[in-house]
Amino acid sequence: MVLAGTFRAHATAVVESDSIGDGTAIWAYSHVLKGASVGRRCNIGDHCYIESGASIGDDVTIKNLTAIWEGVTIENGAFIGPGVTFTNDVYPRSPRMKQAENRYRGREWLAKTVVGEGATLGAGSVVVAGLTIGAHAFVGAGAVVTHDVPSFALVIGNPARVQGWVCVCGSRLEFVQTSTKCESCGMKFRQTEKGLEPLRPPGGADA
Amino acid sequence: MVLAGTFRAHATAVVESDSIGDGTAIWAYSHVLKGASVGRRCNIGDHCYIESGASIGDDVTIKNLTAIWEGVTIENGAFIGPGVTFTNDVYPRSPRMKQAENRYRGREWLAKTVVGEGATLGAGSVVVAGLTIGAHAFVGAGAVVTHDVPSFALVIGNPARVQGWVCVCGSRLEFVQTSTKCESCGMKFRQTEKGLEPLRPPGGADA
Amino acid sequence: MVLAGTFRAHATAVVESDSIGDGTAIWAYSHVLKGASVGRRCNIGDHCYIESGASIGDDVTIKNLTAIWEGVTIENGAFIGPGVTFTNDVYPRSPRMKQAENRYRGREWLAKTVVGEGATLGAGSVVVAGLTIGAHAFVGAGAVVTHDVPSFALVIGNPARVQGWVCVCGSRLEFVQTSTKCESCGMKFRQTEKGLEPLRPPGGADA
Repeated sequence: MVLAGTFRAHATAVVESDSIGDGTAIWAYSHVLKGASVGRRCNIGDHCYIESGASIGDDVTIKNLTAIWEGVTIENGAFIGPGVTFTNDVYPRSPRMKQAENRYRGREWLAKTVVGEGATLGAGSVVVAGLTIGAHAFVGAGAVVTHDVPSFALVIGNPARVQGWVCVCGSRLEFVQTSTKCESCGMKFRQTEKGLEPLRPPGGADA
Repeated sequence: MVLAGTFRAHATAVVESDSIGDGTAIWAYSHVLKGASVGRRCNIGDHCYIESGASIGDDVTIKNLTAIWEGVTIENGAFIGPGVTFTNDVYPRSPRMKQAENRYRGREWLAKTVVGEGATLGAGSVVVAGLTIGAHAFVGAGAVVTHDVPSFALVIGNPARVQGWVCVCGSRLEFVQTSTKCESCGMKFRQTEKGLEPLRPPGGADA
Repeated sequence: MVLAGTFRAHATAVVESDSIGDGTAIWAYSHVLKGASVGRRCNIGDHCYIESGASIGDDVTIKNLTAIWEGVTIENGAFIGPGVTFTNDVYPRSPRMKQAENRYRGREWLAKTVVGEGATLGAGSVVVAGLTIGAHAFVGAGAVVTHDVPSFALVIGNPARVQGWVCVCGSRLEFVQTSTKCESCGMKFRQTEKGLEPLRPPGGADA
């Protein structure tokens, strides 16, 4: 582990970006490319790849064996499990194949993905390009996400379907009629037509 | 990046094969073993592994975090997404376990896989050993392929099932009765009992 | 490949543990942390990560691109396929997020996983934390394991369900009423309410 400015990088890592926040750690055999942006106090495990144009907020945890492509934005406090697979093209072909050359001349193929604040992408999950994972949502291990995920929703399966709701702290929420209180941290929510809404802002949840 | 002969390899890559085509690029922390064959103008992302006995054609794109084993053949112009998992044994046990030693003395355990010309294996997909993915077929993200995939078929899910058909260029095809024309590139197809058949050879599709 | 004591490690591997058994091989870009325990005659493929607190028995095969976390125990003779994803937290959040700090102060979040003797985890499978995979069980490629797996059971799918039974040697077992004999190696079993029971101990199977 060597100290490079104010972030740390393992001796085997390759860090080409000059936009990495204070207190971030980048572990073995990981590669952060020039033009990638990584926030403060992040932890990036072994064998990761952060591409030019990827944007990662503060306090994000990225476990091992994950590649974050151009077009992927990960907001503050998100958890990206081991072996999570992102994409940035809805119907990829090899750009080197003659019949696909036209499509890859421009940038219209690039589909963006947003992982909201404090969300969790479970181990081995796969996220199809062009989707938004809502704040504090929870994608279960091995899920294949093919639609947007509402904030606070728990989704599992292939394709991933909403199976319940979770608190900011990660605990499952059980609803009595249309409102609930997290039994673990005490935070309160109500159900609306669009999904879940905290009754107090997340930052005040443990007040 | 260093120039080794006529292909390029990242400084952290380990390239032991002497059969790598002109114009191919091999990126960080990737390992190409002696006896592996890689064609021309390929792009092999970070954290890949190409085993002795694997065979890769020309113009192939292999994204990050993929291992290509002995027994796997990837034909010209195919796209292998990030985190795709191949296999070459239908019911693997640890060869070091006493009760499995007999089975691994010979080579009968080795089951071959072929990925046809211009096919796509979506991000995080898994391919069971011994199968053929037809030319220009499209395996969706996170699919688990347990049967042969017809040429031009789109398969998704676990286990993967045919959900539609795609053009050489990657666009979805909508059939009017038994024939169709790609709205993106204009290529024409007809449906037969065995699957899809182009009305003109793929090479002339964009003529 | 360099000889370090009595095990071998590729020149690009980082081995910090002083608890690695005789005859074990650790391949390229793999990282074995201080405090990880690896038995004798194991084979650990490229791009693997063995964390402090992980415990691996003798004669284990771990294929490429797998991370073995603290809390995971792999017993003798198991086979861990390529791209297998383990976990050790049932509802992870980023420990760096303010609202999750409390939870990660202690160690109650840590959920243990056991992979029994001679079991197989198929390529690309995902194992939710806190489960036991029984001895000689077989988890199919791409399966997402969300419940304990009985010894000798074959499970597939997302979520993984029992689809049949396998012998110690890996072959499928076909039952005539309540007992069966492996057509490949001759081992005999009977079905009980709890699952499968060998009529002779596995060690004597090929006697």
